[in-house]
Amino acid sequence: MEANASKNMHSHCLEITMEVHKVVPPPHRSTIQKLKTKLKEIFFPDDPLRQFKGQPLKRKLILGAQYVFPILQWGPNYSLKLFKSDIVSGLTIASLAIPQGISYAKLANLPPIVGLYSSFVPPLVYAVLGSSRDLAVGPVSIASLVMGSMLRQEVSPSKDQVLFLQLAFTSTFFAGLFQASLGLLRLGFIIDFLSKAILIGFMAGAAIIVSLQQLKSLLGITHFTKQMDLVSVMTSVFHNTHEWSWQTILMGFCFLVLLLLARHVSMRKPKLFWVSAGAPLVSVIISTLLVFAFKAQNHGISVIGKLQEGLNPPSWNMLQFHGTHLGLVIKTGLITGILSLTEGIAVGRTFATLKNYQVDGNKEMIAIGFMNIVGSSTSCYVTTGAFSRSAVNHNAGAKTAVSNIVMSVTVMVTLLFLMPLFQYTPNVVLGAIIVTAVVGLIDIPAAYLIWKIDKFDFIIMLCAFFGVIFISVQDGLAIAVALSIFKILLQVTRPKTVMLGNIPGTDIYRDLHHYKEAVRLPGFLILSIEAPINFANITYLNERILRWIEEYEPEDNIKTHSSLRFLILDMSAVSTIDTSGVSLFKDLRKAMENKGVELVLVNPLAEVIEKLQKADVAHEFTRPENLYLTVGEAVASHSSAMKVQSSSM
Amino acid sequence: MEANASKNMHSHCLEITMEVHKVVPPPHRSTIQKLKTKLKEIFFPDDPLRQFKGQPLKRKLILGAQYVFPILQWGPNYSLKLFKSDIVSGLTIASLAIPQGISYAKLANLPPIVGLYSSFVPPLVYAVLGSSRDLAVGPVSIASLVMGSMLRQEVSPSKDQVLFLQLAFTSTFFAGLFQASLGLLRLGFIIDFLSKAILIGFMAGAAIIVSLQQLKSLLGITHFTKQMDLVSVMTSVFHNTHEWSWQTILMGFCFLVLLLLARHVSMRKPKLFWVSAGAPLVSVIISTLLVFAFKAQNHGISVIGKLQEGLNPPSWNMLQFHGTHLGLVIKTGLITGILSLTEGIAVGRTFATLKNYQVDGNKEMIAIGFMNIVGSSTSCYVTTGAFSRSAVNHNAGAKTAVSNIVMSVTVMVTLLFLMPLFQYTPNVVLGAIIVTAVVGLIDIPAAYLIWKIDKFDFIIMLCAFFGVIFISVQDGLAIAVALSIFKILLQVTRPKTVMLGNIPGTDIYRDLHHYKEAVRLPGFLILSIEAPINFANITYLNERILRWIEEYEPEDNIKTHSSLRFLILDMSAVSTIDTSGVSLFKDLRKAMENKGVELVLVNPLAEVIEKLQKADVAHEFTRPENLYLTVGEAVASHSSAMKVQSSSM
Repeated sequence: MEANASKNMHSHCLEITMEVHKVVPPPHRSTIQKLKTKLKEIFFPDDPLRQFKGQPLKRKLILGAQYVFPILQWGPNYSLKLFKSDIVSGLTIASLAIPQGISYAKLANLPPIVGLYSSFVPPLVYAVLGSSRDLAVGPVSIASLVMGSMLRQEVSPSKDQVLFLQLAFTSTFFAGLFQASLGLLRLGFIIDFLSKAILIGFMAGAAIIVSLQQLKSLLGITHFTKQMDLVSVMTSVFHNTHEWSWQTILMGFCFLVLLLLARHVSMRKPKLFWVSAGAPLVSVIISTLLVFAFKAQNHGISVIGKLQEGLNPPSWNMLQFHGTHLGLVIKTGLITGILSLTEGIAVGRTFATLKNYQVDGNKEMIAIGFMNIVGSSTSCYVTTGAFSRSAVNHNAGAKTAVSNIVMSVTVMVTLLFLMPLFQYTPNVVLGAIIVTAVVGLIDIPAAYLIWKIDKFDFIIMLCAFFGVIFISVQDGLAIAVALSIFKILLQVTRPKTVMLGNIPGTDIYRDLHHYKEAVRLPGFLILSIEAPINFANITYLNERILRWIEEYEPEDNIKTHSSLRFLILDMSAVSTIDTSGVSLFKDLRKAMENKGVELVLVNPLAEVIEKLQKADVAHEFTRPENLYLTVGEAVASHSSAMKVQSSSM
Repeated sequence: MEANASKNMHSHCLEITMEVHKVVPPPHRSTIQKLKTKLKEIFFPDDPLRQFKGQPLKRKLILGAQYVFPILQWGPNYSLKLFKSDIVSGLTIASLAIPQGISYAKLANLPPIVGLYSSFVPPLVYAVLGSSRDLAVGPVSIASLVMGSMLRQEVSPSKDQVLFLQLAFTSTFFAGLFQASLGLLRLGFIIDFLSKAILIGFMAGAAIIVSLQQLKSLLGITHFTKQMDLVSVMTSVFHNTHEWSWQTILMGFCFLVLLLLARHVSMRKPKLFWVSAGAPLVSVIISTLLVFAFKAQNHGISVIGKLQEGLNPPSWNMLQFHGTHLGLVIKTGLITGILSLTEGIAVGRTFATLKNYQVDGNKEMIAIGFMNIVGSSTSCYVTTGAFSRSAVNHNAGAKTAVSNIVMSVTVMVTLLFLMPLFQYTPNVVLGAIIVTAVVGLIDIPAAYLIWKIDKFDFIIMLCAFFGVIFISVQDGLAIAVALSIFKILLQVTRPKTVMLGNIPGTDIYRDLHHYKEAVRLPGFLILSIEAPINFANITYLNERILRWIEEYEPEDNIKTHSSLRFLILDMSAVSTIDTSGVSLFKDLRKAMENKGVELVLVNPLAEVIEKLQKADVAHEFTRPENLYLTVGEAVASHSSAMKVQSSSM
């Protein structure tokens, strides 16, 4: 019914010839109002205070508390049923977290125990503040790698351990501070500049770097380079062949195969997630027993060695906000902060969409930030939601953040009573565990998809990848980000302009190169500009449009029509315009007048109309005969006018 | 006729209910073809080789020669009539060029004679290579100021003059090299990033800085600060009050008034352009006579002093491409190069539009670049087309670049025979000349217009202005450019999304907030996205669209309609999309399925369709019922479908 009705009305209104719809200036709004809406769009696009509107004060307070502490949302109606599935998943990720914690700590050149500390406190903090139900919190490979490599530029972890530890905690603090303030200042969109393409390339590169670092323990080399890049690592590996120990290599190879097999199984059958989840702990136990049985540590297999027991000692007294290394520490904090934040947020969003619930990006940032600030004063280094572990958590059927609590309790027990057991754990197994963990970061299919969809994105990805491998992690990132910003600027400086043609039998106008049936109308040049017009592209647009006009020759040979009479600019896609943009139209109008061509604007948007009005005192642009709501109407009214003249010729 | 015909056909086709127009994928083009067109748009938007197409070889060669040396275009049919007007304008700008040349050279801390050298060789080069007919070539105030101030950071012009001169020539060489390569590499768009707003703020600031520098000669101070910024200049002026000489001040004041009056007259009556054009030379002559008559140089009025005669000595042996100052020299070359290029191009374009002829930006850059490269090896410092002088040239009726030749010949004569006359020219007059010249750079009305049109541009302008005044010329520029790039990025990260409504009696859909008569259709949410979709804005778009949906409640209360059934995205304005953009649509589709809302895309452009097709194997997006050519058709076909269901409820 309705559709037909509207159609009839429509065709009806078209019978009334020349009935056109005015382009009206938008309803007036003061500068303040405009500024307010603009700022809201910039900082509060998700309108977080929406839910508070029109609620009684008491309710508002409750909502506020729940907003700050999401645990108050799901806590009250938490049931035994939920707890059952949470405890399973919690124990599962704990069995993964303990060996990984130790391994990643070594990756960051920190004492293994710090890795366990970092799996104890932060999960508790996140359970209270975090809004994701699947995030499994703890240290992650990439942030560990970056922190380790960056700090090692200035301080040797082996020579002055204490200083190195202080710097690690301090940069963790800055990372947290940075993350939290990003969330508080609603500047979350900054992490969006690490595009998917960048991350895929970067992750793959980092995975390779990390694996290369493991050659030290996998081959049992004692004199290993301090550099990270492919070349120097490889040289140092093959210059120290005499240090290779066959026992280590053999053991490493066996456990690597074992772990990779386990991973393969779980990937094939997600039901068997526990295989890959349990494998690391199992191999730690087995290898430890082996070493213990055969006194293998005396046969060239290096072991972790004594670890002190007990919970996290306080470390706020170790934070240093002065001294020569402050610059480095802040830089490290920023980069590790951004990287871990990106991973955490991405993980949160992924599982949120899977289970169809919302995570508030900025809120997550605050949660992760506080988690790291607290961590930095309780002997933890930078932590976030790890992808692999969260996946296990999800598969193990985690329902709420309680699984994090279960995990951290398990870790606590380990810290209190089980530390001596790790004394004989061989480093080679930790190396194997890390390699298995990071292999998953190399995502070939995704890379191929990018290649298929967008070649430029693919190049950016390659830059990130090779930058990380051959130069350094942070430089690789920087190059890739710079490139993708350059890509955006290029798009802005070279906006699309397409020539429109009429689709016969309609008043629809579409791209001539896209819709082959579309035809050009003699005497008209109809262009649509597909981007905001600003200082960066007016020169291009000017030249381009003039070129369109010079190239103009209609197919038909009716002489009276063959000359260009009207330039119609469809402005529907010009979302905004600046002072330079306004001047472009003034220049165009002048140029057109010289050529005897009439400039007609179609459907300029609110902002554009306003600015054009403010700019031209003569109201040249807002004259009705130069301003139409649709291309069809513009063409209709002008072509009839043209007929009259041409017939009089 | 035609219009009505098309209308009838149109209304006719509308009677056939549900007749919709397929959205077809664009005709296939290989990656190479696409890359080719892309690169062409980036580097050859003006298609310079257009004219060569389909010409015989001989003609091609001629055209090629004319393309490289525009003089061959207008040279052959140059007439005595043209020469008459050229010689007038040539002599006029010469009378302006000589005193200005001397003054600007002093502004750049260079010996006055270099200013005259720079008004002799470069104009000849430009006359051969340049494509503008009105550009009057020579040294300009801002480039002189910047070069002087930047080089003085490391080398004192008074202590080691020769080194300073060498650096000046070398940076001129780099400026030219940079300008020429910008043109050759077709990267001209880089100067577009100096937006109008920036330039207005920057020019005004520079004008003030320049004028402040003149206080030295206007007050006759001998110990003057080496700093440029407002504060330090003012302090040094008022700490040296004892050095002020009343004779100098008196003389300076008189001539300043005289010159400003002359300028005022010419601005009132463009016919009297020669008043302001001649004034500088006249005041130089008078002041020189006065000094000579009263031996004023012995009464505290400083004069230029002896100047050697003769034409430009070669200076390629003075170019230094090594040593400690190389970095500074290159930096100076870049900045002065960009600044002078921007001025030159802007001037060329302005007068080209006035007289309705084309200047090829990239060709101009090559011309100006070569001009400076040649200049650097013939004792000239950086030159370009000066705005004030070109205006005079234009008003004096210049027809071709011959006026430049006339000017440079006049300068040559001066260099050969008239130099001794300048021995007694007082510096104070040169100061007055500079101040009068730069006052014109302060453009209050333009600033006001920017304030009216775009507040953010106004802020950028202020940053440039105050940055130049209080910090330094180059930093002021840098800050402003950074800000305007940030503005672009902000626009990209926060693209416009508007809710469309149907304008009653038509199938036109427009912004609900803009067109008050537009009405929402129950069951439909129609959004149009007004920007390319990429990594920087997918998060925002996702949140924003979900918010639109949550906020959705139609005005009417017919329960069966009040629930959202269709989300229609008008993609007409989405000019391009990247891999992240594709993933956005996948996520959206998932989210919509969970909400039981159908996602419909309207008029995606060629590139977008292609990428979506490549991305989704299931062809979810390219199903006809999810893809329409116009919003009207999408609504029509779906609303009828909805009717059927709702009636069956």
